[in-house]
This record gives sequence, structure tokens and C-alpha cells, in this order.
Amino acid sequence: MPSIFTKIINGEIPCYKIAEDHDNFAFLDINPNAKGHTLCIPKKEVDKLLDMDEEDYMKLMAFSRKVGQAIQAAIPCKRVGMSVIGLEVPHVHVHLIPLHSMQNVTFRYKESMTPEVFESTAARIREHLK
Amino acid sequence: MPSIFTKIINGEIPCYKIAEDHDNFAFLDINPNAKGHTLCIPKKEVDKLLDMDEEDYMKLMAFSRKVGQAIQAAIPCKRVGMSVIGLEVPHVHVHLIPLHSMQNVTFRYKESMTPEVFESTAARIREHLK
Repeated sequence: MPSIFTKIINGEIPCYKIAEDHDNFAFLDINPNAKGHTLCIPKKEVDKLLDMDEEDYMKLMAFSRKVGQAIQAAIPCKRVGMSVIGLEVPHVHVHLIPLHSMQNVTFRYKESMTPEVFESTAARIREHLK
Repeated sequence: MPSIFTKIINGEIPCYKIAEDHDNFAFLDINPNAKGHTLCIPKKEVDKLLDMDEEDYMKLMAFSRKVGQAIQAAIPCKRVGMSVIGLEVPHVHVHLIPLHSMQNVTFRYKESMTPEVFESTAARIREHLK
């Protein structure tokens, strides 16, 4: 069965899309640690980051860098953090999280956002990817 | 003034070393979220991950992948997570953390380890890098 992330890539589940290239896809985390929290995922379903082959891993990391730089330019924050955990969805995902304090990395505090704020946040990040 | 991590690279502060190449250095986090928690750092002092130039960033990510795979092989865990935060030490560091539960990513729970356990843990990880 395709993962929830594959369904997002295929448009079967809606998302606030940030970017896409041949191998990777980025969209806003729907349960964000902070405004601007984005997930970067490979289109190929692999469970663990460190089990990806080197080429796919390097492409994902290069893609995440570009998306992260756009977030860092678009969203006021101290810096954008990067985190790969993967204990819940078995499809590699790189969290890019605008950091204001350590609270934003615990995955316990969650930011409440309206659909309008999600959409305007995605648009601001996309603007910096042009 | 050199960062605490530059002092570790230069041997002015002791560490449990895991690996080193021309550009990067890895050692056990002295205040670990879990046994095997390792830091990978570039030898060149840069504050923010996303401010590194692309070549240095990609080298750090390739180095972190190799070290992470060795940790994943050496330390029983569900998987090795990766996290870059950087709110405390202004010298890029990639956390590689053996994950058992979400507790290991909060940076609130800390594992207590004796010097002997640090040394044997480092030796086991190094064994998988040969």
C-alpha cells in the first residue's frame, strides 16, 4: 500500500506544496512545530534515511538545502533546523523547522494555523525558490 | 576565539573520537540523548548549516551518512536519527542519534554513561567504519 506521503505526491491527499523536482517533493507539515515547518521527501519510498543509496540521499540533501534556504529567507526565525526521525511514517522525510527556541525541536509543542495562514506561508516560501 | 568544537578537533579538549577526514570530524556527544549519540562537524567553523557553501555541505552530509550507517550497525536501536539545531554552539554540528522512542529526539532526556561505556561505544562504532 502506498504511504501517506506517496498519496500526497500523487495528489490523492491535498497538501500545501512548496517545491518538486524529478526525485523529491516538499510540502508544509500539517501539524507544524513552528510556522513554516516543511517536509522534504524522496519520491521513491524508502523507510530509513541511512538505507537510501548514496545518490538518492545526496539528491535529497541538496534539495533540502535549497528548500531550507528559502524557508530561512521567508520566515523570521533564528535559523532553520533539520531533523530526520521517521518513527511514525515509514517513508523518509526531512523536517525543516524554523527555530525560535528548543521548544520547536521537541515535537511536543505544535503551532495552530488556519488554512489561510498555511497557504500564505507556502506562497512566501515558494517566492524565495524562484 | 575558536569554538569548543574547534578545540576538540585540535585536541585541546579531549573527546571520544569516531572518525575524521580532510574536511570533517566525528565524536561522541558528551551529554547524549542515547548511547551512541554522535556529532559530525566540519573543520571549517560556520555557524549555520544552511549558510555553508554547497560543496562543504554536501561533504558533511556524505560524511554523516557513513558515520550514521556505522552507528546503525553498531548500536541496537530502531534507526539512527539526524538532527541539526545549533541554538547553543555556533559551529555546525550534525547530531546522529540512535532512536528507541521520541524521547531520544526531545533533547530533554539524557543518558548517563561512564567513561568506560563511552570508550567501548566509540570503539564499537569505529569497528564498523573500517
